[in-house]
Amino acid sequence: MPIDGALLERRLDELYAIGAEPEGGVYRPLYGDAWAAAGERVERWMKDAGLKTRRDAVGNLWGRAEGGGKSIVTGSHIDTVRHGGRLDGALGIVAGLTAIEALLKHKGKPRRPLEVVAICEEEGSRFATNFWGSRAIIGAIDAPDAGMAEAMRECGLDPATAASAARDDIDTFVELHIEQGAVLETANVPLAVVSAIVGTAHLELTVTGRPDHAGTTPMDLRLDALAGAAAMIQAVESIARSLGTPAVATVGKIRAEPDQINVVPGRVVFTVDLRHSHLGARRALEERIRSLCRTTASERGLELEVRVLQERPPVPMHADVRAVLTRAAQECGVRATELVSGAGHDAQILAARCKVGMLFVPSVGGRSHCPEEHTDSGHLELGARVLERALELLAY
Amino acid sequence: MPIDGALLERRLDELYAIGAEPEGGVYRPLYGDAWAAAGERVERWMKDAGLKTRRDAVGNLWGRAEGGGKSIVTGSHIDTVRHGGRLDGALGIVAGLTAIEALLKHKGKPRRPLEVVAICEEEGSRFATNFWGSRAIIGAIDAPDAGMAEAMRECGLDPATAASAARDDIDTFVELHIEQGAVLETANVPLAVVSAIVGTAHLELTVTGRPDHAGTTPMDLRLDALAGAAAMIQAVESIARSLGTPAVATVGKIRAEPDQINVVPGRVVFTVDLRHSHLGARRALEERIRSLCRTTASERGLELEVRVLQERPPVPMHADVRAVLTRAAQECGVRATELVSGAGHDAQILAARCKVGMLFVPSVGGRSHCPEEHTDSGHLELGARVLERALELLAY
Repeated sequence: MPIDGALLERRLDELYAIGAEPEGGVYRPLYGDAWAAAGERVERWMKDAGLKTRRDAVGNLWGRAEGGGKSIVTGSHIDTVRHGGRLDGALGIVAGLTAIEALLKHKGKPRRPLEVVAICEEEGSRFATNFWGSRAIIGAIDAPDAGMAEAMRECGLDPATAASAARDDIDTFVELHIEQGAVLETANVPLAVVSAIVGTAHLELTVTGRPDHAGTTPMDLRLDALAGAAAMIQAVESIARSLGTPAVATVGKIRAEPDQINVVPGRVVFTVDLRHSHLGARRALEERIRSLCRTTASERGLELEVRVLQERPPVPMHADVRAVLTRAAQECGVRATELVSGAGHDAQILAARCKVGMLFVPSVGGRSHCPEEHTDSGHLELGARVLERALELLAY
Repeated sequence: MPIDGALLERRLDELYAIGAEPEGGVYRPLYGDAWAAAGERVERWMKDAGLKTRRDAVGNLWGRAEGGGKSIVTGSHIDTVRHGGRLDGALGIVAGLTAIEALLKHKGKPRRPLEVVAICEEEGSRFATNFWGSRAIIGAIDAPDAGMAEAMRECGLDPATAASAARDDIDTFVELHIEQGAVLETANVPLAVVSAIVGTAHLELTVTGRPDHAGTTPMDLRLDALAGAAAMIQAVESIARSLGTPAVATVGKIRAEPDQINVVPGRVVFTVDLRHSHLGARRALEERIRSLCRTTASERGLELEVRVLQERPPVPMHADVRAVLTRAAQECGVRATELVSGAGHDAQILAARCKVGMLFVPSVGGRSHCPEEHTDSGHLELGARVLERALELLAY
């Protein structure tokens, strides 16, 4: 069954316009106006496709075709980062919906329940949480804090019932996503079956020295927190480089205090994002970075505090789902490769309660989380077609 | 004539309370509420001392005792950095005012006009300018930009008349200030006559790479602006260290974009503050830093833009004023030393139009621009006493 590529593109365009920013890109933070409007649009498409829709207690939007036993689910997240692109999250929802619509039209009622979900949040771009939607589905959320509870109420959700979003009747979750890196494009391969999602640790390092006047304090009497942090940032980069692919380490945020041109910084706070597909290697990477930063701080008379903001182990995709996805690709005549996902995805959370698998299509220039995020139309359609065939193999 | 040490301390306490911050320290940015309130307090003290007061077109506050010929002026700036201390600027105003008050009381009308000035701005802590007050006095300001003009109007000042603050009738400007470094304390010397003020350059470096996803972009495919900036910050420190005292170089401000934990920074902007008492050496320091940063950028495929925000040559203090200050110290029985000022002061601007000189008293621990900024009471009183004697030698 062909996928209607034009319909796919049109729906992606429509979603991209909801939350569009004047300077380019899109922003649909959890429980905001654009987020709600995008959900309404997707719900309309679900209904048009003949699906029964419902919104769960945290705002995940489900469209369902009935069948027997546990569900086969596809979908992705509907929130975006600030200045986000057209495809991250949106593709998985639109392709899943369009694939199910085609299956229902050409194959009729599925043997198993077949669902598409617009997950409420994955990016952590509004509140100090992420994977809120998928964690709610596996029953792994705490009560939302006051600010988030207020935002939920403004969307007509009752924060007190959040736990009721949990499900134990999902058999398999498959998601189509853009790669967000340049490996497929570089290798000239149109599709990947994901083998595992990397483990990630987010650290926050606080370096404390002493603020001093930039003119009157000789170099050898300084306790310069930024000079110390710069040495640490250098170390983070060189350790990750020396370990080689797939180790990556990134300092993405930095803040100096008092942040004045003529004052030696007394404190610097920066973050480190660490990833590897093997837990032991991820931990070794972290330990080497911690150790070198400690040494740097100690040599310079600086204090160092390291806080773990988030820590997630690597998650292998389920062997059965990988096999189905590989078979679907073969049956569609598509040459696919296996790939480790360097980015986090809802599948890594849902893996705790169901079988999971993912498909990646190439990102032009590896760009993502930015307005330049782009995938060729042919690759989008091809990804949706393989997803459709996989859903057919699983649910019919 | 003795200086009333208790009055000096009380007035410093009163000023320190105006613009006090909840977390400690004081902030009186140019044309803000605290700035205006501090000016009103000082004006009341000036009137109490029998001085005729006036506010010039940029908000410098003058208190004057009439006499013949050109003026003998003392004072300092009334604005502060964020989280500033009790003495920087405030001491020069309060000590000058208290000294003139004592002179008028015990010596009567001066031979020459004797003035104290609360200079409106020196720290650059609100707008992208500094030495605004003293530059206005020497007639070296442009029209304020829109934001600053608006702030002036809110203080009842007419930005269109700013140029009228210029004066050509000042003979000598002397200022008492804290050292803001630890040289006097380390040498156990209670007073310094300043020989010169260092030359300073402020640079702003913009490093441009490419924002990429922190998980999906291998280390060797990145153009990480922050990793590059960290290498440059390391270089700034090591070059200044290798040149030795009095060379200093400081990276005080840094900003990364997009400043997200899971995105490789695509752009970093940071500042460099460079100082040396010899112009040639200051320029050599700057050229070495520029050259190394260019090399680092080029090796990493990053773009580098260097903007000079400010550049001031070293300024020697006037020989006549240094002689008067040295004589005043001797007559007060104080052992004084000569010192190069590593910090910039209004005297370096005013030197273009009049004779200038400065006195330094020790800063405990060399701390300044912070709530811990402190000078022993005995040293404050002693500094004010020598200033008083110098003003007497100059104006009577």
